[in-house]
Amino acid sequence: MTELNKRQATASEEALWRIFTVPEAPDSTLSIIEQNISQNLAGFLRESIVAVEKPLWQIERDFQAHQIPSEPKFVSDYAEQMMEKLVAHSVHTAAPSFIGHMTSALPYFVLPLSKMMVGLNQNLVKIETSKAFTPLERQVIGMMHHLVYGEADSFYKKWMHSANHSLGAFCSGGTIANITALWIARNRLLKAEGEFKGVAKEGLYRAMKHYGYEGLAILVSERGHYSLGKAADILGIGREFLIPVKTDANNKVQSAEMRRISRELNEKNIKVMAIVGVAGTTETGNVDPLNDLADLAAELGCHFHVDAAWGGATLLSEKYRHLLSGIERADSVTIDAHKQMYVPMGAGMVVFKHPSSAHAIEHHAEYILRKGSKDLGSQTLEGSRPGMAMLVHACLQVIGRQGYEILINRSLDKARYFASLIQEHSEFELITEPELCLLTYRYVPAEVQRAMALASAEKRQKFNELLNGLTKFIQKTQREEGRSFVSRTRLKPERYQRQDTVVFRVVLANPLTTDQILLDVLEEQQQVAALDKEFLPKLLQLAKDSTA
Amino acid sequence: MTELNKRQATASEEALWRIFTVPEAPDSTLSIIEQNISQNLAGFLRESIVAVEKPLWQIERDFQAHQIPSEPKFVSDYAEQMMEKLVAHSVHTAAPSFIGHMTSALPYFVLPLSKMMVGLNQNLVKIETSKAFTPLERQVIGMMHHLVYGEADSFYKKWMHSANHSLGAFCSGGTIANITALWIARNRLLKAEGEFKGVAKEGLYRAMKHYGYEGLAILVSERGHYSLGKAADILGIGREFLIPVKTDANNKVQSAEMRRISRELNEKNIKVMAIVGVAGTTETGNVDPLNDLADLAAELGCHFHVDAAWGGATLLSEKYRHLLSGIERADSVTIDAHKQMYVPMGAGMVVFKHPSSAHAIEHHAEYILRKGSKDLGSQTLEGSRPGMAMLVHACLQVIGRQGYEILINRSLDKARYFASLIQEHSEFELITEPELCLLTYRYVPAEVQRAMALASAEKRQKFNELLNGLTKFIQKTQREEGRSFVSRTRLKPERYQRQDTVVFRVVLANPLTTDQILLDVLEEQQQVAALDKEFLPKLLQLAKDSTA
Repeated sequence: MTELNKRQATASEEALWRIFTVPEAPDSTLSIIEQNISQNLAGFLRESIVAVEKPLWQIERDFQAHQIPSEPKFVSDYAEQMMEKLVAHSVHTAAPSFIGHMTSALPYFVLPLSKMMVGLNQNLVKIETSKAFTPLERQVIGMMHHLVYGEADSFYKKWMHSANHSLGAFCSGGTIANITALWIARNRLLKAEGEFKGVAKEGLYRAMKHYGYEGLAILVSERGHYSLGKAADILGIGREFLIPVKTDANNKVQSAEMRRISRELNEKNIKVMAIVGVAGTTETGNVDPLNDLADLAAELGCHFHVDAAWGGATLLSEKYRHLLSGIERADSVTIDAHKQMYVPMGAGMVVFKHPSSAHAIEHHAEYILRKGSKDLGSQTLEGSRPGMAMLVHACLQVIGRQGYEILINRSLDKARYFASLIQEHSEFELITEPELCLLTYRYVPAEVQRAMALASAEKRQKFNELLNGLTKFIQKTQREEGRSFVSRTRLKPERYQRQDTVVFRVVLANPLTTDQILLDVLEEQQQVAALDKEFLPKLLQLAKDSTA
Repeated sequence: MTELNKRQATASEEALWRIFTVPEAPDSTLSIIEQNISQNLAGFLRESIVAVEKPLWQIERDFQAHQIPSEPKFVSDYAEQMMEKLVAHSVHTAAPSFIGHMTSALPYFVLPLSKMMVGLNQNLVKIETSKAFTPLERQVIGMMHHLVYGEADSFYKKWMHSANHSLGAFCSGGTIANITALWIARNRLLKAEGEFKGVAKEGLYRAMKHYGYEGLAILVSERGHYSLGKAADILGIGREFLIPVKTDANNKVQSAEMRRISRELNEKNIKVMAIVGVAGTTETGNVDPLNDLADLAAELGCHFHVDAAWGGATLLSEKYRHLLSGIERADSVTIDAHKQMYVPMGAGMVVFKHPSSAHAIEHHAEYILRKGSKDLGSQTLEGSRPGMAMLVHACLQVIGRQGYEILINRSLDKARYFASLIQEHSEFELITEPELCLLTYRYVPAEVQRAMALASAEKRQKFNELLNGLTKFIQKTQREEGRSFVSRTRLKPERYQRQDTVVFRVVLANPLTTDQILLDVLEEQQQVAALDKEFLPKLLQLAKDSTA
């Protein structure tokens, strides 16, 4: 090495050491960005995220390089670049007028707490790298368990911190939570018996031969979340054995139909491994008849799982928790704290009715996750994990039951208010009523509504197709304009003869969404509709011809 | 509602709104904590985490309540409480003298960036809730792919942003990454053929019947990570079909033995589904002979996965990447950025040699993750996920190849230096040499070493048992004293006749660990050893008797 090279090496080494030892200066670009976030998150998001949409292919051009850059970069340069290329083209999920997603505004205190979590950088897989974070996570799971099952004090005293038991698992999200629950269901069903050492050890093929089944099945509403398909695939059940069961006019699974299917399967020697109830469907927000499903699961002697990833937070409301009645009979329940519990992304949970459920998936390594240790990693699907439970803990403590009561009730009441606005409005049609805080609707000019009411089935179909085009146009234009956002989905409502019907989908969980914003959204949609040159004129013409 | 109740409701509602709308005051408890973290993270951790260990049962008393508190709590009260009950009893994973974990110091800039990530609260499952974060994540995966496979520019131009392909998957951690890789291996092996629609659709039982196998197997070193057992379980392969293969004196898997086992399995009609190479074993840090394993995988026509969760970062060093030679022949590779890449917890990745690998696990929902969309969620195990890729992106840009070259080389060189210190020291024994930056050793008084050299096999066993007790005592006492930390594990070294041997385990990835700290660790261990009243006297007596 030449003297010059050596000096350069030393200089760059020193620069490198600085990023580990010297804090960001208070007047650095990144510090200023951080202050903006800390002092006015909503303002930061509003001002930093560009309103007008840039096509994806243009955004991709900024993320085209495939080689890790050779030269280090100054943090300030990087921060500036990211503001322009990343933040500007991200999604304002917290905006009170963006009522199409399940994410909402966040309480301010989660920001500094997140930094604390990252700075502490604990690893929850084992107590050796998490210490107090392990009992904290067990407490969070215990509280969620109590929210669902409400067992006696003695129950929690006995099990919450018991080394070889768990009341649930903290997960990165609802998908892992659902898979964990169904993994347990599979392993409990195909347990060791006689010479057979159980599916966990011997695998599914031998398990099926031992038990003499021709197949396993999972029954769920046709509105079940797609993560259940992943579970059926990864667990070796097969996607075709995740059986979608028809829903009624209110998007609730028909339990009689489920019973009929279970009999059919039984005749084919296909064992129903689990029934999944949905407590808040992703698209319409409806809750399955959980008590009926619990009855059926008991009849069939199978696992009963409830996917309440989104709707589970409703249990925090004394006023509305009856909507999820029967959930306490489930063997396992998924709840995502990053949906209606106001926690940032990455906080899924599954709770188990029985503290020994997770024994079915328990695993030990020879020298970590030892039997009798309190390492959380021995009963979870994931391994190394961050201390996200801390943010759920914080929200539960700072907001409290009283706070959640107000927040959840406000959301559900607001959805009912918005539904009434839509119903009273001559130019809109409510498609699904809000059972929780999710509803769907569409824009239909009054004269079209009148014409449709009188039209033949054939003609109604024609109307519907044009309305689908118009709904898509409105949703897309509104999103691109960037002032407000509703999502859209496609339903087959019974009262429209199960025709494909494109609808606006609205989730009202953001506490900052005001009544005025809801009025404005409808107002904007009407204005946008008037801009459509393709579907609207045809619709009006068709209406005119029909009533002529 | 009485007037008073109404007024109270309004007051508590207002308090609630404030947490969403009013930032933490600069002089609030939480803000002050945050400033401390931002200005002096190492100091904050040093001062906030109590050095002396508190028994777990005492910590648990602070996390005993199982009911979500009814009353909301002031953020400042909560923050104070958490400092005392949580932070004080967490683990100082970033301390330069804590060289027993795979976590290390973090660069300062990840702290404000984490806050930005949380504040933006994007959801990477679909482009609609992530926008520019999706191309960013694809770029990070592309860069890691290039690091492993080094394909031509045209390859990345074609595939990196291709809607229906993926060069890898970003995961919460290495466990999910390994499971994803083996899920793909299983589904590719048991693919659709003729009437059979593939394991994903029809399940494992029908797949096995269709292909006529009696079982599936995964071959891996006996030093393989326990996450592979989870993978074998959840995928329905069975833990008994994850076959541990003997390692040589250097803790590298014996590929000849693996070949022999694969022949035996073949005779039993058990199909080898995948071979897993370990690039950096958790306990000894050794790398399997990857080229030999690639040859064998090619012979057997099976998937070749490399678990480089910990060691993969070594590829960032031009000087040392040859140690992982053959990794570029793997079908899939796991690398955790939260280990040696200086990213906070929660950043696992798996890269795929073939851009269409993930087709085997692809899934679409009817209205999201549509075919042709760029939604990342259609080819990942997880669903909703945070924008953690941003922190990997930042580290790759800010540290750059040159920076990582220095960091990685320093770690490996430091491990070699520490090994030489141990070897030269008359009272210590190096058990495994550092191939990457992990080594194991133990304390053995010089006279005991001399006596052992001359002792019979039986007597050596007696020595060894006493040494195991002493090693545990030293490690435990050192941890409880809180000045420094090494971990411990149990090996069966060939040169000790494969007797159970308890050892100190050290990972030298923290750039702030100085040579002096390493000297101090040995010094402290010697001092602690002298405090032992149980094993040390017996050892010395035994040595005396032996040489008498």
